[in-house]
Amino acid sequence: MSKKNLIYGQSGGVTSVINASAYGAIVAALNNPEIEKVYAGKNGISGILREEFFDLGKEPRDEIARIPYTPGAIFGSCRKKLKTEEEFKRLFEIFDAHNIGYFLYNGGNDSMETVHQIAIKAKELGYDLKAIGIPKTVDNDLMHTDHCPGYGSAAKFTAISILEATRDLESMHTDSTQVFILESMGRYAGWLAASGALANMNGEHGPQIFLLPEVPFDEKKFLSKVEEVIARDGYCSIVAAEALKDSKGNYISTEDYLDAFGNVQLGKIGIYLQKLIRQHLGRKVHTALPDYLQRSSRHVASLTDWQEAIEVGAAAVKFATRDGLTDIMVSIVRDNDYPYLRHYEPVELSGVASAVKYLLKEFISKDGFGVTTEFVEYAKPLIEGEAPVNYMRGIPLYAGLKKVPIEKKLKG
Amino acid sequence: MSKKNLIYGQSGGVTSVINASAYGAIVAALNNPEIEKVYAGKNGISGILREEFFDLGKEPRDEIARIPYTPGAIFGSCRKKLKTEEEFKRLFEIFDAHNIGYFLYNGGNDSMETVHQIAIKAKELGYDLKAIGIPKTVDNDLMHTDHCPGYGSAAKFTAISILEATRDLESMHTDSTQVFILESMGRYAGWLAASGALANMNGEHGPQIFLLPEVPFDEKKFLSKVEEVIARDGYCSIVAAEALKDSKGNYISTEDYLDAFGNVQLGKIGIYLQKLIRQHLGRKVHTALPDYLQRSSRHVASLTDWQEAIEVGAAAVKFATRDGLTDIMVSIVRDNDYPYLRHYEPVELSGVASAVKYLLKEFISKDGFGVTTEFVEYAKPLIEGEAPVNYMRGIPLYAGLKKVPIEKKLKG
Repeated sequence: MSKKNLIYGQSGGVTSVINASAYGAIVAALNNPEIEKVYAGKNGISGILREEFFDLGKEPRDEIARIPYTPGAIFGSCRKKLKTEEEFKRLFEIFDAHNIGYFLYNGGNDSMETVHQIAIKAKELGYDLKAIGIPKTVDNDLMHTDHCPGYGSAAKFTAISILEATRDLESMHTDSTQVFILESMGRYAGWLAASGALANMNGEHGPQIFLLPEVPFDEKKFLSKVEEVIARDGYCSIVAAEALKDSKGNYISTEDYLDAFGNVQLGKIGIYLQKLIRQHLGRKVHTALPDYLQRSSRHVASLTDWQEAIEVGAAAVKFATRDGLTDIMVSIVRDNDYPYLRHYEPVELSGVASAVKYLLKEFISKDGFGVTTEFVEYAKPLIEGEAPVNYMRGIPLYAGLKKVPIEKKLKG
Repeated sequence: MSKKNLIYGQSGGVTSVINASAYGAIVAALNNPEIEKVYAGKNGISGILREEFFDLGKEPRDEIARIPYTPGAIFGSCRKKLKTEEEFKRLFEIFDAHNIGYFLYNGGNDSMETVHQIAIKAKELGYDLKAIGIPKTVDNDLMHTDHCPGYGSAAKFTAISILEATRDLESMHTDSTQVFILESMGRYAGWLAASGALANMNGEHGPQIFLLPEVPFDEKKFLSKVEEVIARDGYCSIVAAEALKDSKGNYISTEDYLDAFGNVQLGKIGIYLQKLIRQHLGRKVHTALPDYLQRSSRHVASLTDWQEAIEVGAAAVKFATRDGLTDIMVSIVRDNDYPYLRHYEPVELSGVASAVKYLLKEFISKDGFGVTTEFVEYAKPLIEGEAPVNYMRGIPLYAGLKKVPIEKKLKG
């Protein structure tokens, strides 16, 4: 049996450790005797469809070593979904022309759907392809995995940021700002907003109110909760998820336009809440919208998350080659909370693709404005340790890959 | 001559290293044979006027050691200004009752004015007081000092954040977000916004456009600059100062209310720019408003800034005792750029109080959308090195002071 080539691609919104998974997969593949050449698609499936991929065998070893220290998606990401038969046909022509036997795709829900569709198509065509999904999302909303690489680091950023800001607020509240709001990413699931509770883990002062997308937003209850907290503590620190629904199930938005699909644009909920509190309670409010900072903050990545991201990438190569699997995602299975122990297992993509795992009910406090100790027990191992950063003159140093393009074999 | 007591207070907006200055002053004072007792005012001058201060001789050594690792203002800050003769009279009654001979006040422009007024009043009254200002502001806008403690750390946060976010943007721009905006604090001076340029220091991809308060905002020129950058690089990363003026000299604001003094409230300029770009250029934009995170981000403080903050606190004690000075601020004097060398000198408060140092003209690029290499040479030593952080289970550990109140000697 002749050796096949492997292609790796990145898709969807980035995390601060998606490149750690790239590194894990690439290093495992470059050192795997069953694999001939190792490629990466430029902007995921978008570049692959244009025969734009890089030959990673031509990268200097020093630059490969810097990949897991680099935020963003080092090969470029995309939001493309495969839709037409034409596109699938083109993809397999390209795979065939370049002797691709392994396709590793690093992304969230939508990207797992893409891998699943490609795996199904390969079977239909009788094309021997091992298609593997490598999970990645700060939203932590993928099914059938204990958690997702990228979540721990975004959670660590969120917890530390709200902890620091709450100390700031505490300093100022006697004659200035009394309410601080941190708007959290996480889309329709409350995992990332909930992670602000880790700020309180060591007995420190962190947020007192959480607004989670799983709990309908009740303006009156919220405002009276804020007043209650201020009466008790003198100030109120809030983590608000970006996607809050009112009691009728409509998303609250301050954006005045619809996206390309006609959906209400989420975001700026922090600004909405700030106005609400100022108007109804007359309190001075400060609001932070970290936006991309939350998912790019490699400088404060979790060591546990970073190591898992690397290992999940390497596990994908093992599942594809030694185990000969396809149409699966690498899943993280927790074996123990403390000491925290885990291992990696394949799970069928059909159960993962395009599904959403919401914050569990037992993780939300009774009044809906907080999280339970069960949540803290779940989340705390994921932020443990500090991933190393290469600083030069006070600024992190990132990989500067050569990105040597392969020679195109097909006509455009 | 009988020994006198020292009181230290914090005032104005916090920085991530104001507590490092507190530590420097406290440790120097506790170990100074000329000083009897060391106190800290609760919420600066506000608490001092109510006889609310803490006896720092009663703090456990371990907790004092943790002060410089803690963000916020550990003794509480205030925005109070002394206005009436009554207040001054009360202050000196309290100073006299508690045998205060040294008053150290840690703050920005307004706080330096407070120290100056107190020093003048002491002379008028013939009260022997050494009143010393310890500088602190992320805005870096104090006169007669090379730079201000707190600026280096906020600059480091800004540079690293925009660097990380720009890598994120670069990953996504082919079929998603093409413009990223980071709104920077810094009030009416462009020092902090300009610090985003340090992201590019090591040849990395950082922001391509800076909007500085010193340069009138021209909508047309800005929009065409954004398009020019996108045409060249595919994406555009922007750092915008919170206080931008239009060509008529009016501040641009999206806030719909005035503050207590009837002034337009600054802020949310990032949201304003996002709408502008979407409406006029049809580009997808993401915006981050770090707000308090920018001035509280102790986890990514600059080692140089942290050390200087400690030393400036200690220098204040030396100037007050060994040199017997009053009505002065501790100033940082730069002796050399690289290796970076500095020392501390007293400067008269009359030249500092309530004045503002704007970003120097030679630090702003010709087209007004960038900074010069002279600025980078000025700012880069200030972000050098990483201040240590005490982590426990992935979360920073802060000081938990006992804050033993002194016995009140006067009637309320």
